[in-house]
Formats: sequence, structure tokens, C-alpha cells
Amino acid sequence: MSTVKPIDDPERNPRVKAVFDDIRATRKTDFVNNLWRTLAFDPSLLENTWTEVKRLMAAPTALDPLTKELIYVAVSIANSCSYCVHSHTAAARAKGMTDAQHAELLAIVALAAKTNHLATGLQVPVDSAFEAAAR
Amino acid sequence: MSTVKPIDDPERNPRVKAVFDDIRATRKTDFVNNLWRTLAFDPSLLENTWTEVKRLMAAPTALDPLTKELIYVAVSIANSCSYCVHSHTAAARAKGMTDAQHAELLAIVALAAKTNHLATGLQVPVDSAFEAAAR
Amino acid sequence: MSTVKPIDDPERNPRVKAVFDDIRATRKTDFVNNLWRTLAFDPSLLENTWTEVKRLMAAPTALDPLTKELIYVAVSIANSCSYCVHSHTAAARAKGMTDAQHAELLAIVALAAKTNHLATGLQVPVDSAFEAAAR
Amino acid sequence: MSTVKPIDDPERNPRVKAVFDDIRATRKTDFVNNLWRTLAFDPSLLENTWTEVKRLMAAPTALDPLTKELIYVAVSIANSCSYCVHSHTAAARAKGMTDAQHAELLAIVALAAKTNHLATGLQVPVDSAFEAAAR
Amino acid sequence: MSTVKPIDDPERNPRVKAVFDDIRATRKTDFVNNLWRTLAFDPSLLENTWTEVKRLMAAPTALDPLTKELIYVAVSIANSCSYCVHSHTAAARAKGMTDAQHAELLAIVALAAKTNHLATGLQVPVDSAFEAAAR
Amino acid sequence: MSTVKPIDDPERNPRVKAVFDDIRATRKTDFVNNLWRTLAFDPSLLENTWTEVKRLMAAPTALDPLTKELIYVAVSIANSCSYCVHSHTAAARAKGMTDAQHAELLAIVALAAKTNHLATGLQVPVDSAFEAAAR
Repeated sequence: MSTVKPIDDPERNPRVKAVFDDIRATRKTDFVNNLWRTLAFDPSLLENTWTEVKRLMAAPTALDPLTKELIYVAVSIANSCSYCVHSHTAAARAKGMTDAQHAELLAIVALAAKTNHLATGLQVPVDSAFEAAAR
Repeated sequence: MSTVKPIDDPERNPRVKAVFDDIRATRKTDFVNNLWRTLAFDPSLLENTWTEVKRLMAAPTALDPLTKELIYVAVSIANSCSYCVHSHTAAARAKGMTDAQHAELLAIVALAAKTNHLATGLQVPVDSAFEAAAR
Repeated sequence: MSTVKPIDDPERNPRVKAVFDDIRATRKTDFVNNLWRTLAFDPSLLENTWTEVKRLMAAPTALDPLTKELIYVAVSIANSCSYCVHSHTAAARAKGMTDAQHAELLAIVALAAKTNHLATGLQVPVDSAFEAAAR
Repeated sequence: MSTVKPIDDPERNPRVKAVFDDIRATRKTDFVNNLWRTLAFDPSLLENTWTEVKRLMAAPTALDPLTKELIYVAVSIANSCSYCVHSHTAAARAKGMTDAQHAELLAIVALAAKTNHLATGLQVPVDSAFEAAAR
Repeated sequence: MSTVKPIDDPERNPRVKAVFDDIRATRKTDFVNNLWRTLAFDPSLLENTWTEVKRLMAAPTALDPLTKELIYVAVSIANSCSYCVHSHTAAARAKGMTDAQHAELLAIVALAAKTNHLATGLQVPVDSAFEAAAR
Repeated sequence: MSTVKPIDDPERNPRVKAVFDDIRATRKTDFVNNLWRTLAFDPSLLENTWTEVKRLMAAPTALDPLTKELIYVAVSIANSCSYCVHSHTAAARAKGMTDAQHAELLAIVALAAKTNHLATGLQVPVDSAFEAAAR
């Protein structure tokens, strides 16, 4: 259960309804997932969060839609957010992620976690070549 | 400085030399970065780590090379591995990442972190639709 | 379920009963939440943990009680501790946190997570002004 | 060093200059810290990030300015963001944080981390009382 | 529920069957836990993961089997992996971990988390003595 | 640099001197590392932290001294605490950790991180057998 009281009919609030309508129109589906329903307890937080997600994830940008979802899933795993892993894995699949790509995503996330812990355990100093490259 | 004694001439150990040679051949460069130089204190750990990195990151697989690096950078940021952020950002740039793509990668990682913390703070219950989708 | 066997009647152990009695007296409630019931498997760990929580969270100190709970919730979210998010959000509400304050707490935690990931992704060097300020 | 090329005179870009000017006006100081200077490599990311920080941290809201900074520092510690710990500790001090409050902030963050790890290690089930309280 | 479709009879795939048989033979039990059953959706990922776990955790090495499991549990707690905390706590118990050792493991993990957060909050500079010791 | 002003001669405070003397006596060395020197800005926080570290890490308990340090290093890596990785790796070496044991510690931490991320990415459900085992 969430840490805020679920609202019985959140769309009675016109600000909430406007966001939900935009979610449905943008995603071309009647389904509004629980993150948005839960955020409805504070219309400003709901509006600000959706605006940012829409601008970055639902509009054409420099990276293709599937790549963006794969990155989102990767961060959600590393931050151990169970809800986000479920919702963004579903989104990645909706954007065409195959089982083979899913397996490879997980393999890369796991390998990165492995070498992250190795480099932190060893306290490897940053190569001056990397610093120069940014110059 | 690292938590293990740097080895003066690590390639005097033939197992280390074989790995370093393979790194240079695979990446078509003379540069062997500090992670591998530091791992040289234990040839088995060095061999196992390189074998896994090479198989996943240096061979053609289901995801394209740049996408794989973007995922790697994303996890490294979320795990707060300074060395890894430097080395894999450099690798992504070497594989063609533009400044616009870099900015977008950072924006998505930051947005994911934001909604990860929101969903965890709200303890949003997983939608049954997501569970069904995996069925 | 927990990773330790729940104890049927933990208060048969006088050390456990003493801690539970102190929790009830300190908090002016009959309710002893699951963290303490689970810690009862090791009376020393239970005693040490409660002593520390009581000293810092249940006594008047430099920060007011609600601010202390907000900080506690913030850390619990960032560390992805589901139980702690629930228990300390409830505690914050018991100490007067309004819905507006809750929404703002979540917004700040989410924004901090966002800029944490940006700064780590960018590897922003620490300003010398900050170092001087600590001098 | 950062992972992006520092820009020599970032304020030659009018969008960057507008943000820097607003930072100086809002904070009543000539000092613009490195996070913003580094973000200048992508004016959109700079604008969006500053807009959000300004709205939440520099305007009067439900929580007082010092409490907001303490929460920000707490999250930055838990996410292990060295830059953010430095910058927001400096900000908290600028907003009046005393040494005693700083010590207590650190003590609470450390205690929360301790019980976060205990609860996660024990996999303590969430009390039904907490769930009811959110109802 | 997992993010991948559970496979009805995973051992109809001979590569999966070979891994499951090896798990049963190595551990001398008929029980194959859910991590392996879930990984069966991608036989290569299953094989690579099991090979690595077997080599490090099921073979005699420099550290004794119980110590290795305690380290594994500690990392799993810090990374907030609920499944891993359950599975490796069970494994540690199977390798002889007593209740007193379990309590002490949790106490050390909790103390380490506490001082980790203190040191990060204070940004304690690394002693030159530690760097010299690695030389 | 630390986020608190270093104190010129911290032992002029008798409470600080008492703790430093106890550190030197307990560890049989003149060396007092920076964590304690930095914590000296708040004698209560210094006393409480040292008391807890001494009780758990410097006294004979259910686990042997080296195992305790290995667990401490493992958590410090997973929490990405650079200072703690350095100080506890040095402590482990002082308690007899060999290079082979160090390499194995790192290999286990890295493997645990890998399977932590896999299990979180897959959202593997906890086996009922693990829950029963705790009963």
C-alpha cells in the first residue's frame, strides 16, 4: 500500500483530470498507471512530474524511444526501485524490446554493477587520458 | 591511490601480458586504462573480468555498441562509481556519442532517479497490468 | 516474511520486555512495531538499537521532532528501505506532517536525487569556495 | 575534472547568461558554483534544472529554507554525491545551520542508514497499522 | 511477479536442464531456487551466471564457505536486494551460521552503513598513511 | 577537504583526548586516522561512534576479527564510501588479509553486485522455501 491515502475519484479534481487526459492522449491508451494515480494526492507534484516525463520520454529527441527506456530501466534497477523496474520494463516491451534485448540489457546492467564495485573496491585512479579527452 | 600496490612492470607476468595484448588488439589502441593495470595484481580476476567485458561490450550483440555504453554509463552514475563514469563516458564518446546525446543521457538518468525516489517514497503498488504483461 | 524466526511471545524474555515497556512508555502507545518485534531475536541488538533511536529521536535536541523525522524519511527513501519509508512516514504524520509538507518532502528528495545523479554524471569538481567555507 | 569540456566564457551564450544572472539575483551573490558552470554545455538542461531548483529551494514553500537544505544534504549523503554534499552543506550553513545542528543532521543520517540496513537485512514485514494509517 | 514470463517446463530446453542438473548435483539437493528458474528465459545468461557463482561460491577457495556467504549477504543488504537477502541468508544458515553470528553480521553491516554515511557526510580526506600502506 | 572546519589541536578538549587515548591504547599505535580527527568537531558524536566501533570491532565476538573487517569493506564498497574502503582495507590487511584473500573479497563483492542487479531487474519472487526456512 502506498504511504498516501488513495483518492477515490481523483479525476473530480480538474487539474488531475487534465493530466490523466493528457497521459491517455499521449500514450494512446485508457490505462493510467498507479504512479500517476498516487501522485494525484498533490496536483502540483503530479503536473510537474508528468510535464517532465512527457517532454523527455514521449517526444522525439536525440535518442530513440527504446534506447531511452533501456536507460530508464537500467537506472531503476541500480536504484532498486521495484515499481519503476516493472513499469519501465513494460514500457520498453511496448516500444519493441525483444527477449534477447531484455536479456542483454540485464547482462550489461549486471556487468556494469560488477565492475562498478571492483573499481570502487580498488579505488582505481582516473586515467589522465580520460580527463584530457574531456578537454 | 588504489587500495592495492601498483605493479611496476605488470606485463612481466605472461598472463597479464596476454590480457593487455588482447585489450590493445580488441580496441585497436596502445592505451590500457588503469582498471586493467590495477586488476593486474590478481591475474585470475583480471582474466575473468576482461573475458566478460570483451564478450559483452566488444562483440556484436543484440544491442548496438553505443546503446550498450549509454546503459553502462547510466548504471555507473546510479552506483556512484567515479572511475566508471569517467571511463565509460570516454568510451561512449569514442563510439560516437554527441554532446546532445550526452546531455540527453544525463537528463534521462536524472529523471529516472527522480521518479525512482518518488515511487519509493510513495511506495506505489505495482499495477496488475504490469504483472499480466509479463505473463 | 523476515529472515529470522519470529518469536511467539518475545516478552517472556525480561530484557525484551524492558525494551518494549520503554518503547510504549516513551511513545505513549501500546503499539510496538515490527522492527522491534523482529530485533527481539537478539536482545543485545534490540537494546543497543532502541537506546540509540530513543536518545536521538525521542529526546529534545537541536532540531525539532518533525524535522528529524523528515530527514529520516529522506534517507530511508534514498537507501530504498521499504519498511523504513512506511514506518517513518507514519511517524512524521504522527508528529504533525501535513499533506502539503509530505508532497514537498517528496519533491525535495526527488530533486536532490536528480541533481545528485547530474553532478555524479558530470563529475563536477568541488568549488574551492566550498572548501574555504569549511575552513 | 568533469566529463564534459569546460566552456571558456559560458556567458557569451545569452541563454546561459540569463540563467547565471538569475542565479546571482536570486542568491544575492556574484558566485555561480561549478554545477551551473558545468551544466552550461547544454543550455536546455541548465535552464530546466535551475528552474526546478529555484522553484523549490529559493521560493517560500510549506517547509522552511533550512529544513529543505537539511533534507537535501541527507539525500546527497545517502546517494554518495561528493559534490552535492559539499555544495548543500555550504548552503545549509549559509541559511543558518549551526555546528550543533550539523552534528545532529549527520547523527540522524547515520542512524537512519543503520536502521535502514537492519530492516533490509531482517526483511521486516510492514505493520498493517502503517498501511491503515495511510488510509 | 517477475518481469519476464515464467517458463512452464524450463527443463525441456537441454541447456537449461544441464544447468539445473549441475545446480542439484553441486548443492546435493533437488531444490532449484527461483533466481535460476527465472534466468531460464535466456539460457546463455543462465549458463554464464551459474558458471561464475559455482566457480566462486561452490568451490574451495582462499576464504571459507561461511565467510563468503556472510560477505554476499552484506553486499545484498547494502544494495537493497530483497530476493538476495533471503536467498543468501538461507545459504549462510545452511553453511552453519548461528543466530549469534547472524545478529553480529547484521550489527556490523548496520555499523558500517552508519560510518559510511558519516564519512561521506563529513567528506573525510583519505589519510596519507592508508595510501602509503598500499604502496 | 572535509565539510567541517578541522580543529587545530583537538586534544585540548579533554573529551576528545580521552577518545584519542583510548583509540591509541586499543589499537596499540600512535596513529589516529582522519575519521576520528574530523569527528572531533562534536565530542558527543565522536564518543558515541567510537564506543560502538570499539564494542563491535575491537572486542572478541562471535565472528573472528578478519571476517568482521571483510564484511565492513564489502558494505563500504556497496555504499560507495571512498574513505571507508581505504581505511577498512588497510585494517583488514593489518589483521592478516593476504593478496589472494583481497582479490577473492573483491570478486565476491562484484559477483554479489551482479546477481543483486539481476534479481532486482528480474524482480524474482522470493521462494516459499526461504520463508519456511526462517520459521
